[in-house]
Amino acid sequence: MKKLAIDAMGGDHGPKTTIPAVVLALKQLSDISILFVGLQETIDLAKKTIPADLLQRVEFVFASEVIAMDESPSKVLRNKKDASMRVALKLVKEGRADACISSGNTGALMVLSRFILKTLPGIDRPAILSRFPTKHNKPVRVLDLGANVDSSAEQLFQFALMGSIVASAVSGIENPTVGLLNVGEEEMKGNEQVKQTALLLSESDKINYFGFVEGDALFTGIVDVVVCDGFVGNIALKAVEGLARFVGGHLQQAYRRNWLTKLCFIPLMSIKKVIDPRQYNGAFFIGLDGIVIKSHGSADQFSFLKAIEEAVAEVDKNIPELIKKHIDQYGLPGS
Amino acid sequence: MKKLAIDAMGGDHGPKTTIPAVVLALKQLSDISILFVGLQETIDLAKKTIPADLLQRVEFVFASEVIAMDESPSKVLRNKKDASMRVALKLVKEGRADACISSGNTGALMVLSRFILKTLPGIDRPAILSRFPTKHNKPVRVLDLGANVDSSAEQLFQFALMGSIVASAVSGIENPTVGLLNVGEEEMKGNEQVKQTALLLSESDKINYFGFVEGDALFTGIVDVVVCDGFVGNIALKAVEGLARFVGGHLQQAYRRNWLTKLCFIPLMSIKKVIDPRQYNGAFFIGLDGIVIKSHGSADQFSFLKAIEEAVAEVDKNIPELIKKHIDQYGLPGS
Repeated sequence: MKKLAIDAMGGDHGPKTTIPAVVLALKQLSDISILFVGLQETIDLAKKTIPADLLQRVEFVFASEVIAMDESPSKVLRNKKDASMRVALKLVKEGRADACISSGNTGALMVLSRFILKTLPGIDRPAILSRFPTKHNKPVRVLDLGANVDSSAEQLFQFALMGSIVASAVSGIENPTVGLLNVGEEEMKGNEQVKQTALLLSESDKINYFGFVEGDALFTGIVDVVVCDGFVGNIALKAVEGLARFVGGHLQQAYRRNWLTKLCFIPLMSIKKVIDPRQYNGAFFIGLDGIVIKSHGSADQFSFLKAIEEAVAEVDKNIPELIKKHIDQYGLPGS
Repeated sequence: MKKLAIDAMGGDHGPKTTIPAVVLALKQLSDISILFVGLQETIDLAKKTIPADLLQRVEFVFASEVIAMDESPSKVLRNKKDASMRVALKLVKEGRADACISSGNTGALMVLSRFILKTLPGIDRPAILSRFPTKHNKPVRVLDLGANVDSSAEQLFQFALMGSIVASAVSGIENPTVGLLNVGEEEMKGNEQVKQTALLLSESDKINYFGFVEGDALFTGIVDVVVCDGFVGNIALKAVEGLARFVGGHLQQAYRRNWLTKLCFIPLMSIKKVIDPRQYNGAFFIGLDGIVIKSHGSADQFSFLKAIEEAVAEVDKNIPELIKKHIDQYGLPGS
């Protein structure tokens, strides 16, 4: 039985999303139990909403505070000692839960995760890892998507290693290829940061280094793992989300004019499953001594379920343990 | 009469695109003349293809070499003294042409442009500026999209100034707003580079500084100009192109299955004009003492025409002169 701590209060919609998502998860995944962390009124609501046969796999954990989506992470760290997000992370620390899932304030979740769980031995900083869709239904794993700015070459190497371990363990890719995000594929291109990282990666026999890749590698599937600084990764991610919203808005306008154009929308349904960003919800805060999954703040119950499934996959393979073992055995450059 | 030097040999399709594009441009723009630069056989073909009544506005300029799309810029600089791209740039330098348009090798075009035209006084480095589509048909101008990596705060300030001048002169936006690309909108976010640049921008009374913007600002229209380091800008641009190709490919698959689904594709035509990347072809190498427009390598005749129109707009307002005047009058921080 995998035990998942859910921050019931996080995200734009809070319990309106998390309660139905928990119901869905309990129905679909028979090998999980939920530690549902929230305010008293939310717990009361959940007890009424979750069907009786599923309730036996839910434990309710009370928290007296909620972290707002725009609160400063440093203030949260100092002041909100009994926030639902923090209580959920503590459950992981104490070994009562195998993973924590929250769609709350990203900055606060990162700061609290580092404070409570700490990074793994040898890992300087956690990174945000997420999957991007490509042709042939083979996702690319990309990190760091914004946990850090100004990462060193050694830290980018650590990200590359952790990304490889996840791609191999979770997706079963043997010897996954790693690309380093750059402005061109030629060796002399890029800034000092990527040139130094390329050197470390090409010298390692533990990483299947492909070479530099450009921004379109997020969607081509040319490599299994794309590594970048969190500054670049976050901007690229937000740019891509911006385009998706822009085009999505225009598509809706074009097809919702009358019943005929609405009918024409139907073929789109067949590709929705492939390109639906909800499919790819659930970013992994990798490098921590514990499993933390960040769901998108605007997640609905379906996409929150995807984040829960992502957590289950990481728990299944015990990713932090795999990383720890690898570093124990082979070490890391520069340490 | 605006005189435009066209590198007839550049791009994935060379003269197959540039000749019909020149015909289109001469038909649609009565106030331009063309300096058509290419190999002898290409000139012969163009003479046969371009209708007689338009030929009087075309001057043919012979070049003996062509730069391949994957040639190293530094080798090009040393060895290809009579390449069509280089000859076209020299026409601008000598004052025989008002602008040069090429869809050739981007790196070579940048290196040759800097070598032949030099940067404007006070400007350290040219930047690549392009327009992105947003709601309400109001484009955002974004720079630098990849001319530089590791720009200093002073250089990013120069980009902001040049972007403002173009937005104001070409699009008639009074006091255009400038956003600085970052991983969040809060003041304490980001790396040293953006923090220092933010300081310079907020101290200037010549730039209408909006503050930090995130990656989605490329498509929201929240600001008129987005400034970023070329490393970040290029990766974001390529990521966005990658998503567009990925989704475009799936859309085609979904709608080209049979005649019924093909029919359903029709409503898409209405939005094609808005989201068609060909509409936005033509990147401006800004900061040079001369006007250079880079067309996408895969441009067709329609999108190459857009690049020509972009050149005409910059020539119309004499952007390099406006930048020079502004710097003469007000100076720049750090100089």
